[in-house]
Amino acid sequence: MSRQIRLNAFDMNCVGHIQQGLWAHPRDTSTGYTTLKYWTDYARRLEAGLFDGIFLADVIGIYDVLGGSYEAAVRGAVQVPVNDPMMLVPAMAAVTEHLAFGITANLTYEQPYLFARRMSTLDHLTGGRIGWNIVTGYLDSSARAVGLTGQMAHDDRYDLADEYMEVVYKLWEGSWEDGAVLRDRANHIYAEPAKVHPIHHQGRQYKVDAVHLSEPSPQRTPVLYQAGSSPRGRAFAAGHAECVFVNGQKMESVQEIVGDIRTRAVTQGRLADDVKLFLGATIVTGRTTKEAQEKFEDYRRYASSEAALVHAAASMGIDFDKFDLDEPVEAGNSAAIISNITAMNRAAGPRWTKRLLLEQMVLGSRQQPWVGSGEDIAERLIAWSDQAGIDGFNLSRTVVPECFDDIIEQVIPILQDRGVYKTAYSPGPLRQKLFGTPRLPIRHIGATHRTSVPTESP
Amino acid sequence: MSRQIRLNAFDMNCVGHIQQGLWAHPRDTSTGYTTLKYWTDYARRLEAGLFDGIFLADVIGIYDVLGGSYEAAVRGAVQVPVNDPMMLVPAMAAVTEHLAFGITANLTYEQPYLFARRMSTLDHLTGGRIGWNIVTGYLDSSARAVGLTGQMAHDDRYDLADEYMEVVYKLWEGSWEDGAVLRDRANHIYAEPAKVHPIHHQGRQYKVDAVHLSEPSPQRTPVLYQAGSSPRGRAFAAGHAECVFVNGQKMESVQEIVGDIRTRAVTQGRLADDVKLFLGATIVTGRTTKEAQEKFEDYRRYASSEAALVHAAASMGIDFDKFDLDEPVEAGNSAAIISNITAMNRAAGPRWTKRLLLEQMVLGSRQQPWVGSGEDIAERLIAWSDQAGIDGFNLSRTVVPECFDDIIEQVIPILQDRGVYKTAYSPGPLRQKLFGTPRLPIRHIGATHRTSVPTESP
Repeated sequence: MSRQIRLNAFDMNCVGHIQQGLWAHPRDTSTGYTTLKYWTDYARRLEAGLFDGIFLADVIGIYDVLGGSYEAAVRGAVQVPVNDPMMLVPAMAAVTEHLAFGITANLTYEQPYLFARRMSTLDHLTGGRIGWNIVTGYLDSSARAVGLTGQMAHDDRYDLADEYMEVVYKLWEGSWEDGAVLRDRANHIYAEPAKVHPIHHQGRQYKVDAVHLSEPSPQRTPVLYQAGSSPRGRAFAAGHAECVFVNGQKMESVQEIVGDIRTRAVTQGRLADDVKLFLGATIVTGRTTKEAQEKFEDYRRYASSEAALVHAAASMGIDFDKFDLDEPVEAGNSAAIISNITAMNRAAGPRWTKRLLLEQMVLGSRQQPWVGSGEDIAERLIAWSDQAGIDGFNLSRTVVPECFDDIIEQVIPILQDRGVYKTAYSPGPLRQKLFGTPRLPIRHIGATHRTSVPTESP
Repeated sequence: MSRQIRLNAFDMNCVGHIQQGLWAHPRDTSTGYTTLKYWTDYARRLEAGLFDGIFLADVIGIYDVLGGSYEAAVRGAVQVPVNDPMMLVPAMAAVTEHLAFGITANLTYEQPYLFARRMSTLDHLTGGRIGWNIVTGYLDSSARAVGLTGQMAHDDRYDLADEYMEVVYKLWEGSWEDGAVLRDRANHIYAEPAKVHPIHHQGRQYKVDAVHLSEPSPQRTPVLYQAGSSPRGRAFAAGHAECVFVNGQKMESVQEIVGDIRTRAVTQGRLADDVKLFLGATIVTGRTTKEAQEKFEDYRRYASSEAALVHAAASMGIDFDKFDLDEPVEAGNSAAIISNITAMNRAAGPRWTKRLLLEQMVLGSRQQPWVGSGEDIAERLIAWSDQAGIDGFNLSRTVVPECFDDIIEQVIPILQDRGVYKTAYSPGPLRQKLFGTPRLPIRHIGATHRTSVPTESP
């Protein structure tokens, strides 16, 4: 039997997320992102359609790599303006019961003590529906925004991230024992102080000597997402992440990443199934293959490859304005750039140029859309699940909200017929839905910081 | 004609806020603070009753001054556990239209660039119903939580706060000009880059070189609240604050504070009416004076003066365990302590002791409750408004939610009859409701950072 497939909407608190330019489509509503109604309607729609969750990206900083200017990013709304993603969660949670929320937060610029409380608060308010996509940031512009002269070297960011995780695990898992909270009105005892402990962390980057401010939330540690693709990033993911977000157009390369991450996780004492893999994908679908193709042709008239180039330049750290259209794009002297170029060359072959990149970005992004009838798409999802070991998909929006309506109406019923998609939500917090238990498994590194044995963990 | 009186519920994302111990009352529901439903019901109730807003306190750190231990604070739920207040706003805003949200945030530990975006996001999502209560913190325990060895000296905190305000004003008021956002689908122009500017701040504490991530929100700068009572705190308030939160039991001393703050504001080029004064108060009311008195006697059986002492010790920085009950409490060598003791002595006379303090805390707090029928209370509010120049009241909860129901049913109708309370909300953002305009007035220091002339400001 095939594994169960999970679907998340992949979005951002902004106008132009992945598929740049589509906000200009007359039926697109994403300019409503500043209003609560936009997001509460969105959440209701996804839950009615049995989506597993909404995964919200974020970026601190602005895309100013292309031509050394932010002007094109502002003009095309390429992830700017971008509002805080966390603030969307309480409103969306208030109108749903099961939908999960994956929140991207850059740990580099957040005080771990305050951040830990924010996540605990959200985990409480949502009844345990919170995931955290751990990012360390990659933009010089964000470093300048918070008073640094530039970002840290890539691997140093992961060393800081490891220590950061240690601090927040101590707060989430170790500060309040299970059973500390009594709510005993008769004896005026809210919590038993002997079961509440300050953490004492004295590390290279952080010193924290304090009791966690929040009482234990349903999951304590939010479900941990990560998207690192470099060797250091994969090592981090294999140690901490419960869900890993991968991108890739080719089955073989994704198979390799999936296998590598699971192997690394096992090496670190975890089970291969302790990590779920989500593939980023963009779907354009309709009642028939022909209708889907026509919809794609309609959408692509609004896509902007210029705006997509702004995004690609910032993601890869390459100023494409310095290259002619047919000039081979060469690596600079930065390890990150070399790594990105290598990945691009693997995908595009050795003759990789700016012209080729622009041609690839048919729908305003480097991510190639999957276009087809519900049946076409369902088979594709099942193939990725079966052959590459993918557990779920983070589906970028194209024209919202109709793109999600189309998936709900055309694709999910077929997945359900094939027995690979739920027909109702299972109960409990997000981690319980994903892994059968609300708390980190005992073999997860975060569980080593516990001061009490959880009653519900395997 | 009397001025219009404004009422805010004064609360905190925790169990024990001001009146310690009352959570143990059988009708109190505050242990539900971790759920969304608790807060959405609360917000609906306040808006149905024409409350102006809900003002949410916060504290980073734990009350460990009394006896040098946090144990009593944990046992009695004295502002611990305490969850993040900001996360309550989107859910409460989703079920209301006019209710305002005053959010306490300690600027000492928040990156101004990220904090500015959080507030802009909330101002967008609420349609301009956000106020920010600016605090600088006063606990050593919070400094230790974020990796410092102790808190900064009192006046240094305000110097840092002045610079912080400059950074966030630049982001809120100066980065995006009015008219920058076009949302021009036909020409694929979301915003006009020539009207979007990076701020360049190079100060003693902060260096920020970045475009604000959020497009302009209805108010841009949230309505600014402050509660400083020291001379340096009043100077800060007179320069920045639009609403000042004062505490005091005696009409004359509050009159003096109100007059001083308005005078200081005028000295700084503002109008006396640019600052609204809110007095902290606790009300126990009923259909008759007798019923109110009986309710008070019932409530006080649950109040905890021990828990109140934990709170008072931390607020004043005095470990009362070091004093016998009838020993005069003497000042230590800290200016803050001397200032607090002086204030207490003014209130209590020269024989001030721990016994006297404990006796004062009849309802679990140093704040004396006002007990009386709706008419008694209404007259008291009007007297404070007329005689001390108070514009509104931040009303602490006692037993929730009935304490607010009582005020809505018994007090507000009488205030309305006397013509000092609205019978319907006026339209627009919070600043418009308070001052007739959604944007900072041109004479406010924040307005000096504008790069465009607002169309709606006086």
